[in-house]
Amino acid sequence: MAREAETHADIPFGPEDTPWQKTFSGLRVVGGRPYGTPPSSDPRAAYIGVPEVPHHKVQLPPTGLDAEQYTEAEALFRRHIDTQTRNFAGYQVTSALDYEERLGHYLNRHLNNVGDPYQSNSYTLNSKVLERAVLDYFASLWHAKWPHNPEDPESYWGYVLTMGSSEGNLYGLWNAREYLSCKPLRTHPREPGNVPVEQALRGEGPHVFHPVAFFSEDTHYSLTKAVRALDIDTFHALGSTRYPDENPLAPGSPWPREVPSTEHGAIDIEQLAVLVRFFASRGYPILVNLNYGSTFKGAYDDVEAAARTVRGICAEYGLDNRRVHRNCGKNSDYDERSGYWLHVDGALGAGYAPYLEMARDAGLVEQAPPTFDFRITDVHSLTMSGHKWMGTPWACGVFMTRTGLQMAPPRPSEYIGAADTTFAGSRNGFSSLLMWDYLARHSYDDQARLAAECDGLAAYTHEQLLALQEQLGQDLWVARSPQALTVRFRQPHADIVRRYSLSGETVHVDGAARTYVHLYAMRHLTRQRVDQLIGELRQPGAFAPASSTRTTAGGVREAQPDGPGADTASR
Amino acid sequence: MAREAETHADIPFGPEDTPWQKTFSGLRVVGGRPYGTPPSSDPRAAYIGVPEVPHHKVQLPPTGLDAEQYTEAEALFRRHIDTQTRNFAGYQVTSALDYEERLGHYLNRHLNNVGDPYQSNSYTLNSKVLERAVLDYFASLWHAKWPHNPEDPESYWGYVLTMGSSEGNLYGLWNAREYLSCKPLRTHPREPGNVPVEQALRGEGPHVFHPVAFFSEDTHYSLTKAVRALDIDTFHALGSTRYPDENPLAPGSPWPREVPSTEHGAIDIEQLAVLVRFFASRGYPILVNLNYGSTFKGAYDDVEAAARTVRGICAEYGLDNRRVHRNCGKNSDYDERSGYWLHVDGALGAGYAPYLEMARDAGLVEQAPPTFDFRITDVHSLTMSGHKWMGTPWACGVFMTRTGLQMAPPRPSEYIGAADTTFAGSRNGFSSLLMWDYLARHSYDDQARLAAECDGLAAYTHEQLLALQEQLGQDLWVARSPQALTVRFRQPHADIVRRYSLSGETVHVDGAARTYVHLYAMRHLTRQRVDQLIGELRQPGAFAPASSTRTTAGGVREAQPDGPGADTASR
Repeated sequence: MAREAETHADIPFGPEDTPWQKTFSGLRVVGGRPYGTPPSSDPRAAYIGVPEVPHHKVQLPPTGLDAEQYTEAEALFRRHIDTQTRNFAGYQVTSALDYEERLGHYLNRHLNNVGDPYQSNSYTLNSKVLERAVLDYFASLWHAKWPHNPEDPESYWGYVLTMGSSEGNLYGLWNAREYLSCKPLRTHPREPGNVPVEQALRGEGPHVFHPVAFFSEDTHYSLTKAVRALDIDTFHALGSTRYPDENPLAPGSPWPREVPSTEHGAIDIEQLAVLVRFFASRGYPILVNLNYGSTFKGAYDDVEAAARTVRGICAEYGLDNRRVHRNCGKNSDYDERSGYWLHVDGALGAGYAPYLEMARDAGLVEQAPPTFDFRITDVHSLTMSGHKWMGTPWACGVFMTRTGLQMAPPRPSEYIGAADTTFAGSRNGFSSLLMWDYLARHSYDDQARLAAECDGLAAYTHEQLLALQEQLGQDLWVARSPQALTVRFRQPHADIVRRYSLSGETVHVDGAARTYVHLYAMRHLTRQRVDQLIGELRQPGAFAPASSTRTTAGGVREAQPDGPGADTASR
Repeated sequence: MAREAETHADIPFGPEDTPWQKTFSGLRVVGGRPYGTPPSSDPRAAYIGVPEVPHHKVQLPPTGLDAEQYTEAEALFRRHIDTQTRNFAGYQVTSALDYEERLGHYLNRHLNNVGDPYQSNSYTLNSKVLERAVLDYFASLWHAKWPHNPEDPESYWGYVLTMGSSEGNLYGLWNAREYLSCKPLRTHPREPGNVPVEQALRGEGPHVFHPVAFFSEDTHYSLTKAVRALDIDTFHALGSTRYPDENPLAPGSPWPREVPSTEHGAIDIEQLAVLVRFFASRGYPILVNLNYGSTFKGAYDDVEAAARTVRGICAEYGLDNRRVHRNCGKNSDYDERSGYWLHVDGALGAGYAPYLEMARDAGLVEQAPPTFDFRITDVHSLTMSGHKWMGTPWACGVFMTRTGLQMAPPRPSEYIGAADTTFAGSRNGFSSLLMWDYLARHSYDDQARLAAECDGLAAYTHEQLLALQEQLGQDLWVARSPQALTVRFRQPHADIVRRYSLSGETVHVDGAARTYVHLYAMRHLTRQRVDQLIGELRQPGAFAPASSTRTTAGGVREAQPDGPGADTASR
């Protein structure tokens, strides 16, 4: 790629500002010239700087860093992260962690849970024995049938994710696509069931294996990415190309990109019903993603009502239970499956709401969010993030489905001695250890109390912001969705945004773009920290005048007039 | 899912064998009944056991574990992993790690590099400043143009992976699919270039945006998964359905599933050429995956020769450089791009071979593998695993491409304040810290010496196994591919397989199934450990008689007569 003439071997590099080509010696010089390409411009000028960690201090010359240089660079980075951790308040991520003492040892070990969690293999450096304990824990918590049993289609199957819930969403939607488009199940076809023949024969037509995806405008951006990577049509894409003038929500207007939400951020089930009916009546199988703890508003979709609605509509058009013949043919080898799939993105909520439900039943709080788990028989798959409610040093999570809904993996891998049933090849074995550690040290009682405390802190923050709004005499757009752990308000000055890592979001209200930020009452947050923030927000200049609330500083992007709707991050 | 009648609330659970429903108290009991579902059978019987870590010791009851129970369970797991680490020899993974002392602190912090590595955001708990240093390091090592510059299509772009190279393969193939099928680039269309009009008009036809994938039989199983998830047609799938009787390698025979390899495990370029020509001549864009350090045989595809061959064939059919108009139309807004994409899966080799090249030029070793990096202008994307050559506690790695080849991300995410240009949503920020730490502490000199040592140890192991074979008077199928870090041989007794974590692979030689294992000379392996293994292999009974070499014990699956070809794990 690089040409000699474009290079600048004298560019100062590394902590000592050494000219780049002088950072070589001995073996590193190949054929009389330094190995590799020199920089074509100064990286320090090319990249965004972090003031607390100057880039030249962490640059990696071919000599590496000596002990002193390493110590200085690492100390700068550590101080910066420690400071930012202290004030971190803007994401649904728990930052008060204490794994070092017990688990530091495993930074000197390699743990890789390659392949299916329930199969052993010659790759013995794994933590699958802990992973299975974690999965059973969540199966029980989420009212699934456990332990996993490959012979029992009603028992759960799951695995611990290596990415966060975006991997769970990808894997859930991939399974859904395969399931709805006639690909073979992992298990043998079920025994011929009791589907009436006339019903089984319905739901045919040209679109019978062409799934169409629905998700609300409060859905995490990873869903958009997942449907694109997996090449799944959304109702917007299919509607816009095949039925451009038939948007059933507003005939004659363009199709919306996502299913509309309520003001609080939950999916609008009536409008979902209209959209689902449009496609179900034309024979398309239905794929619905529901959010449980949406990222920006912390909203909980009413999973039970959505499931009931979707199943009812699908039943009218023969999509509730249908026979799927091998190779989409007509031969006698078939299984029975639904013509719809409901995936629940419970990144935050699936890890938190069960404990709030316990707290409610113990009288610690008044209300808990609606049911979302396998008590609802139409929930096909579910995902949760480990770094959100529990808190882990990196993103992780759990994916769960029913054994009978698993699709056949691409092919067996003899090499690893386990079926290739997960999305990743190598899977982070330390993540299972972290979750096991957390669950071993926090009982249901502990977690119910923590959930009640966080719920209380969110309510307190809401009250304080409302009081501030009244005191300042300025509409700060303060709002909290029911049982949400987050409170949203008008975006303040960029310095405050950066100090507290407050994430921003532009929402259109009555045609006007409003840039909000929000605060999350995760368990590391304290009343003192909330009071400190409120104190800063009370200072003159904390909020721009009402006429201008946009900023480009502090990493918060300028509000886009045509920007996306609410979405959800840190999966 | 679970029904009352199927449950068994008395099943003993946890380290004290407590009946399951007695593991609850206080808040955990909702509405007079324990929260969640009880087990429907005893998980201890349902799951494969690890003798050293009895499942009941690590089960997670709703009470959690008390301090004593936790300590005992963690100690059992730690002892088991420490023992297995000592003898670990069968995978291309480095297990001698020493990150605890310096980086243990970060187990108490959360680091998430959400979004593009080169964009800042309000999610300040990230290690992107270190990630950019790591990426620049590899850009220089791999002869790419650096630093990254969004305005310069020839400069590199990359990111640190959260999974291993299977994520890099997925992301590379996703980019390739979009690139070859007329999706918009991330950058603006280039200025009209110098492509002769007649050439630009060629390469049209019904298949002009229908990419077809090629990879060899020694390819990692993650490639099979990637093409299926991404819904990319392989030459086998397309050939079998559209041209069933026209297999150009053996007219009248079924199409092979993968491109044949040489005996040493490298892709057979002559046969690749025949297959590519078949599809290029019919107008299909060409997607080729090449392996650089294949997992089972450690083989290096000749990337330069493959690239020259593919480009030459594509040029004959107007697929070397073509105009792609917006929305696949004929309007004036277009860019120019190749009609092929070469992805290099360098999981092991891309992290190791550059140092062996330095060692060769310094006279430490005689030979180095062929060139694979961005010195070859037709390499479109490249991936490497961090846990293989360098060694990290979990899988990680690097994906790299050219800025001008980046596809437009699904949509911007205002919430995270950075473009959603990576595969994961949340990305493991600790992984960048680990790689930065390793590279800061290992100079090119250190790495070149380590590479030479490992190469020497592989040669030593090969000699010792050949000597053993001669001594035993039994064909142990001992083989080492050129410059491979691995030596393969006949599968020994299951106890030995498990002790050394030796991975197995069935290969068909002259129609007979042979189950091999292999050993990897990674930098944690010593001559003493090799000698110890050779000593055990010398004992009577270490190898079954030649007539029967199959086993089901020790996690090594029974050889499948119709099993897959060589594949590669631990990505």
